[in-house]
Amino acid sequence: MAQYKAPLRDMQFVLHDMLNIENHYASIPAFADTNRELVDSVLEAGAQFCENELSPINRSGDEEGCQFNDGEVSTPKGFKEAYKKYVELGFGSLSAPVEHGGQGLPPSLGVVMSEMMGTANWSWGMYPGLSHGAINTVEAHGSAEQKEVYLTKLISGEWTGTMCLTESHAGSDLGLIRTKAEPQADGSYKISGTKIFISAGEHDMADNIVHIVLARLPDAPKGTKGISLFIVPKFMPTGERNGVKCGSIEHKMGIKASATCVMNFDEATGFLIGPPNKGLNCMFTFMNTARIGTAMQGVAAAEGSFQGALEYARDRIAMRSLTGPKNPEKEADVIIVHPAVRQLLLTQKAFAEGGRAMVYLLSSYNDIVSTTQNADEKKAADDMMSFLTPIAKAFLTEVGYEAANHGVQVFGGHGFIREWGMEQIVRDTRIALLYEGTTQIQALDLLGRKVLQTQGGMLRNFTKVVHKFCQTHEGNADMAQFVTPLAALNKEWGDVTMRIGMKAMGNADEAGAAAVDYMMYSGYVTLAYLWAWMAQVAQAKLAAGEGDAEFYKAKIQTAQFYFKKILPRTKGHIEMIDGGAETLMQMSADAFAF
Amino acid sequence: MAQYKAPLRDMQFVLHDMLNIENHYASIPAFADTNRELVDSVLEAGAQFCENELSPINRSGDEEGCQFNDGEVSTPKGFKEAYKKYVELGFGSLSAPVEHGGQGLPPSLGVVMSEMMGTANWSWGMYPGLSHGAINTVEAHGSAEQKEVYLTKLISGEWTGTMCLTESHAGSDLGLIRTKAEPQADGSYKISGTKIFISAGEHDMADNIVHIVLARLPDAPKGTKGISLFIVPKFMPTGERNGVKCGSIEHKMGIKASATCVMNFDEATGFLIGPPNKGLNCMFTFMNTARIGTAMQGVAAAEGSFQGALEYARDRIAMRSLTGPKNPEKEADVIIVHPAVRQLLLTQKAFAEGGRAMVYLLSSYNDIVSTTQNADEKKAADDMMSFLTPIAKAFLTEVGYEAANHGVQVFGGHGFIREWGMEQIVRDTRIALLYEGTTQIQALDLLGRKVLQTQGGMLRNFTKVVHKFCQTHEGNADMAQFVTPLAALNKEWGDVTMRIGMKAMGNADEAGAAAVDYMMYSGYVTLAYLWAWMAQVAQAKLAAGEGDAEFYKAKIQTAQFYFKKILPRTKGHIEMIDGGAETLMQMSADAFAF
Repeated sequence: MAQYKAPLRDMQFVLHDMLNIENHYASIPAFADTNRELVDSVLEAGAQFCENELSPINRSGDEEGCQFNDGEVSTPKGFKEAYKKYVELGFGSLSAPVEHGGQGLPPSLGVVMSEMMGTANWSWGMYPGLSHGAINTVEAHGSAEQKEVYLTKLISGEWTGTMCLTESHAGSDLGLIRTKAEPQADGSYKISGTKIFISAGEHDMADNIVHIVLARLPDAPKGTKGISLFIVPKFMPTGERNGVKCGSIEHKMGIKASATCVMNFDEATGFLIGPPNKGLNCMFTFMNTARIGTAMQGVAAAEGSFQGALEYARDRIAMRSLTGPKNPEKEADVIIVHPAVRQLLLTQKAFAEGGRAMVYLLSSYNDIVSTTQNADEKKAADDMMSFLTPIAKAFLTEVGYEAANHGVQVFGGHGFIREWGMEQIVRDTRIALLYEGTTQIQALDLLGRKVLQTQGGMLRNFTKVVHKFCQTHEGNADMAQFVTPLAALNKEWGDVTMRIGMKAMGNADEAGAAAVDYMMYSGYVTLAYLWAWMAQVAQAKLAAGEGDAEFYKAKIQTAQFYFKKILPRTKGHIEMIDGGAETLMQMSADAFAF
Repeated sequence: MAQYKAPLRDMQFVLHDMLNIENHYASIPAFADTNRELVDSVLEAGAQFCENELSPINRSGDEEGCQFNDGEVSTPKGFKEAYKKYVELGFGSLSAPVEHGGQGLPPSLGVVMSEMMGTANWSWGMYPGLSHGAINTVEAHGSAEQKEVYLTKLISGEWTGTMCLTESHAGSDLGLIRTKAEPQADGSYKISGTKIFISAGEHDMADNIVHIVLARLPDAPKGTKGISLFIVPKFMPTGERNGVKCGSIEHKMGIKASATCVMNFDEATGFLIGPPNKGLNCMFTFMNTARIGTAMQGVAAAEGSFQGALEYARDRIAMRSLTGPKNPEKEADVIIVHPAVRQLLLTQKAFAEGGRAMVYLLSSYNDIVSTTQNADEKKAADDMMSFLTPIAKAFLTEVGYEAANHGVQVFGGHGFIREWGMEQIVRDTRIALLYEGTTQIQALDLLGRKVLQTQGGMLRNFTKVVHKFCQTHEGNADMAQFVTPLAALNKEWGDVTMRIGMKAMGNADEAGAAAVDYMMYSGYVTLAYLWAWMAQVAQAKLAAGEGDAEFYKAKIQTAQFYFKKILPRTKGHIEMIDGGAETLMQMSADAFAF
């Protein structure tokens, strides 16, 4: 099985060559000290940890899974020890606020770290990953006392956190949740109800677990406007066991080493966090960051499966190249000579590297949103982030899953065998298209909330950036191959949005019917912009004679591949969008099967 | 978990309304007695068996898997008993020749039976499925004595069979196999070597296992022209144990109840079957039938996951319809009201029903090929089957896998949980894109061997049929919506083939670079033809006032959905084909990663 090797060269390309991250950090007062050296040293330390501690327990974790025994959950061999090391090395507190013991580094650097952890061992990364949601929630909405009691220990990693949203009948539609919160004389609440799909809800890696729970006050309005947020610790700060217990863990397709818990709250003591009935609003603040984290799972899938498949394709021999033997000394040629194998590998590569650029760019907006005091600056960054997040979450997980499947395909029948690790990536990644809002929910969020509800404003924000890029480089002969098709697609993006908007005014289902194809179209065009950008950076480096020419040449070649062999998928999506809602809606529910 | 229900109404639509199978059988002397009544009674008996015996042990079989213990393999609970019943009911001998104890029914009827078994429980179906390969081989190439000893017991089901092709270093490229056959004085051979991925190689369901083994004679030429076929029984007809033993079973992503064995041949006694060094040619005779069987796995995946997802979508409530509440009495609407959910369901339905039509049509050619004495008739049917088989195998497994994933998606997070059974279909189906020749190998077979090597002859055979269909119905106002786009795509099919052919003359890699997109394009157009055909049949039935009008209306609506919301994918494939080989081939193997 292939061991993970952090693609530091490529990560540095995106951070330094492309995003000029040092300048970006310098422009944000809170992160002005985060220079290139610091960034690179964090990357290298992170890479070592992920390669040496997390990658080796990835396959074994999948085979062993989590064990449930009367409310207790044990994680697979090595998980606890790796977590201990993670805490000791301070990786958990990297981008947490200094005033509560964090290191105050930019969120975008934490995201880079999460890419490495996730690619090396996604299941393991879920445990610290869930803490981030709890940390962000307490930091933004907690009282001074709540911060003192919970935040410091969450940041240090002594305790971990969870987000308890879903109930068995209420997933995408949180308005239906029934968990109750009864006010008590002392200002606390008694929380009762059952939550499902709670990642890291119970485990043996930390001393305490801090649950952030969505529940309803007795007089709460129905639906999403009657949901409040509560802190419910497993152990009370006094040390006493609280009335929350893990009822069972799920048997899943993948991420088997991540405990997915049914959590029973039986008059558990909870503390209101944020204003009553505004729980969902408070959540929305962090929905974007959680979704960026899930988008990263798509990148991790593409990167991890690409690494495995590439190693195999350079080694495995089968048949001769169609243009004559390439390894005449061997019985057959290595399979990387075959165009169809290259098509799989380059597709993985284009999604891994392009997806990385997309998530890093997105996170750079988050650096601004999370720190700036300037309202205009904040709104501009927030709008961009709000627009790109559903694209990154849905599109990158869809194509990351595709890439994971390509990894299996390169291995032929061996890809189906567990020990090679390729099928695990497929199983582990499948959840990314479901949790934190399914692809379909993201697509509605993008087209409905972000595009149509802003009368196209958020879309125009972004297409203007793309337009400007195209204008800037249209005179460059080497860039025409990218800029010409990109400019056409960018214009088409606006046009098709207008067509959908017009139709949706007459029939709201037209938006629902277009949403998924629209989201995929948006993803391919956004990625085209990023690949054109990366090609332009690489061309500039080559022209200047800077750095490793072979690296930059490969970057341009991957961009060329993307434009010729992936981007044409947009053609189908446009036509399917224009295909409208009628053929989706006309069939009666009874007539689907006889 | 949803239990399988055989879609008898739809199967009968394809067999009777569309293919007029009674007339087809009547035109073939060997099957002249197979009338509609007989067909329907076989379907009903098969449905009962699959629903009552196979479906209930599908989930448990996945959880339990096969157990290996010192060369012995035990199958999951209930598998043996179901096999016993299968033999007793005579399903194994359905389409086997009467002279060896079979029932002499048409192969196409056996394929319908295999659809039901496979959808109910693909792993279980692998055991009798593998016997068919051995039966066909012995029947076509065995001596009279070999037939007497082995064929009768394979047909009765007392014994099962395997096909031992793959070795760990030789999968797609069988020319590399090393298993040796040493001639003995008594005319037998000593077979030595290790085969992997041998489905049903060892199990506890039958008294004996008959292995058909590819091996090399001492003086054999290198490569594919030096391979011979041998019969190697687990127990000699005298009852003595032969020198073939299962070394281990694989731990796989799916089809866990199907034993995938490493088989060690240690001077095992074998008997040459067919002429020496012609083993691969002998195999090719049955490659098509084996591939049709695998194509069916795509249909089974689409049908099974569609059944589960539809049941869930009609029951689960979440959010309101975009056009206002549809179930105002409930807290939320059933999710089948949402366009994005319908898009998933209708995609599954279009692939399941369209794929069924494709495989049944394909099998009807096999009825002719396997019985006719008329050389012209045989060649015509064989050409059609040869052309359509790689399309059906590769395209239907790709879209079947897509459909299986849609099933998970409809369930949201619950789709990831094993007990619902949806993720099992994904895992079980993944192998279909790999075994019996990967998607990439099928694509090369289609474009290289079937299309370019016949100078487009096999393609023209088929596009002429489509052209004629379009001409016949172009005057029908109700059919224009199908016939107009179909005729255009049919013409484009020839045009793009010409373009590839021209480029490939200068550079063979151009064919390899186009192959997978060409195969997918071919699949979508072939399915468009079948959906247009089905719509035409349904329209004719409606016009005649025959049968269930709701059923036929839904058929037309599904065709409309397919043309508007799936067929446009061809647009992208054409452009990616025309994108050529350069961006695939220009990158050096070293430059894929740094």
